[in-house]
Amino acid sequence: MINAYAAQEPNGALSPISYDPGELGAHQVEIEVDYCGICHSDLSMIDNEWGFTQYPVIPGHEVVGRISALGEHVNHLVIGQVVGLGWHSDYCNTCVSCASGDENLCQQAVPTIMSHGGFADKVRANEKAVVPLPKGLDIESAGPLFCGGITVFNPLVQFDIKPTDKVAVIGIGGLGHLALKFLNAWGCDVTAFTSTEAKASEAIEMGAHQTLNSRSAEDIEAAANRFDFIISTVNVKLDWNLYLGTLKPKGRLHFVGATLDPIDIGAFGLIGAQKQISGSPVGSPATIAQMLEFARQHNIAPQIERFKMSDVNDAIEHLKSGKARYRIVLER
Amino acid sequence: MINAYAAQEPNGALSPISYDPGELGAHQVEIEVDYCGICHSDLSMIDNEWGFTQYPVIPGHEVVGRISALGEHVNHLVIGQVVGLGWHSDYCNTCVSCASGDENLCQQAVPTIMSHGGFADKVRANEKAVVPLPKGLDIESAGPLFCGGITVFNPLVQFDIKPTDKVAVIGIGGLGHLALKFLNAWGCDVTAFTSTEAKASEAIEMGAHQTLNSRSAEDIEAAANRFDFIISTVNVKLDWNLYLGTLKPKGRLHFVGATLDPIDIGAFGLIGAQKQISGSPVGSPATIAQMLEFARQHNIAPQIERFKMSDVNDAIEHLKSGKARYRIVLER
Repeated sequence: MINAYAAQEPNGALSPISYDPGELGAHQVEIEVDYCGICHSDLSMIDNEWGFTQYPVIPGHEVVGRISALGEHVNHLVIGQVVGLGWHSDYCNTCVSCASGDENLCQQAVPTIMSHGGFADKVRANEKAVVPLPKGLDIESAGPLFCGGITVFNPLVQFDIKPTDKVAVIGIGGLGHLALKFLNAWGCDVTAFTSTEAKASEAIEMGAHQTLNSRSAEDIEAAANRFDFIISTVNVKLDWNLYLGTLKPKGRLHFVGATLDPIDIGAFGLIGAQKQISGSPVGSPATIAQMLEFARQHNIAPQIERFKMSDVNDAIEHLKSGKARYRIVLER
Repeated sequence: MINAYAAQEPNGALSPISYDPGELGAHQVEIEVDYCGICHSDLSMIDNEWGFTQYPVIPGHEVVGRISALGEHVNHLVIGQVVGLGWHSDYCNTCVSCASGDENLCQQAVPTIMSHGGFADKVRANEKAVVPLPKGLDIESAGPLFCGGITVFNPLVQFDIKPTDKVAVIGIGGLGHLALKFLNAWGCDVTAFTSTEAKASEAIEMGAHQTLNSRSAEDIEAAANRFDFIISTVNVKLDWNLYLGTLKPKGRLHFVGATLDPIDIGAFGLIGAQKQISGSPVGSPATIAQMLEFARQHNIAPQIERFKMSDVNDAIEHLKSGKARYRIVLER
């Protein structure tokens, strides 16, 4: 039996639950959970904001733990190995995206939460979705790298961001603070856009070279023609056409934060100087491994607050209050 | 003196005008105009739709002719050489875009129409903006390559479109019909989206392998997950989120037609499968030269209707009627 915390209905508090995971599949890995981060998408799933939640739902998809069992065909991992598991617990392994190393874009990929998530003593996943932690990486804070971290790291790889690029991060929270750390280590000139004054000085400590107010038209206009790449982590509507103006020719405005309002971009703002907007979800297992190694090399760790897993409802309240600095990790 | 056709006010008919171009600059080239295409942006400039027209305005920026005079520092061209001139007649030559071979993105670039356009017996431009025609290219129809052609060819180079890509063209007109020809020769599987039934069979003749109705939600939804690259040449609002759905993971929806309505894209439509939207203007002189050579190699020529330059007002009326198939060239 696996002991976990589950919500029974939208907006419901989490309560203990046990379930029988059945026989371990030949290509499955069972992880004994040591730490599990909380992500905004856990809240979205608990509240069925995306419409595909099945109750009871066990959230948790930023898992770090030790392998406690291996399926009979899993040969490249060993019992006791320290590993992580992120948004996806399985892929179809046969589509063009999977065959191209873009498993994160597999349209049949299984969200970890849907196969029972990591707010639990154990969690299972396909071997392909389980990524070993490199020795030397801090395991207590590593969980949030597996969703928040990879979400902001992956675009640097996908779009070939250069150390000579001038970049900006909109929104300094769970994702944004990791974007600052990665981009600083990447060698870029980094600007943080935040509307929270208290975060401005923290942003500098975390790797920004300068900060601007994300809601000040004056600040944004003063940054005209400055950036090669902007990554937006916010889930609110901003004046995107103003931000387009801060891009250099060929610049890219990239969304990892999902606003429900349409992104109403003017065609002229794209055409005149060959600008582009894009979005992306998490990353592939190979890119996760690359990120972990980069984080180890550059001593990059999520800034976390810890809660006991049994206090998960308090942790969720803290996250909802907007006061988390900058990511919450549950420890078992 | 140069004899030309100019509009004196927005929506005004063109009438003969003469002007003294002054001494030829050391790096300037004077072209005796043989042919000049008419582009929708000529109409936009005549009518001051973009707010920066200065009257009298001499339109014309799809020029083909022979060099009649060379500035004293122009060493790589010769008198009598057959050349073309497109949207830009000069660049700053010093900005990062110019230094990177992206002169078309130079924010100080001079539109040919602003320095007096090609509805004239002669036109002048900086040597850098004048591109020789390769031997074997049909000179009577080549004019429209210099704006309409390069506008749809340039993205294939900029975004590294592969012969193995499945691509679509939205809107089969002056730009779209050239996109079909280029993409077919590029080796791609080509779909034409048009709402004009009569154009569907013509699109096949011009290089499309299949056609779909650009205004049929049913047709668009049936093409889900099909395209790597879509180029939109229309200047009307379509349901762009529906079109996003026709892209494969990592696919690109690219705009060269400028709609005045915002492109209201949902963030989820971009994020889920790493999709992107972008825009671009014309191309650099180097890319124009590359396009001309590719057109010669593959016998690609704009499908044109010819008018005498003295009948320019009739030609403009024909263009405005939407009946031009597919581009109009004035001959002197």
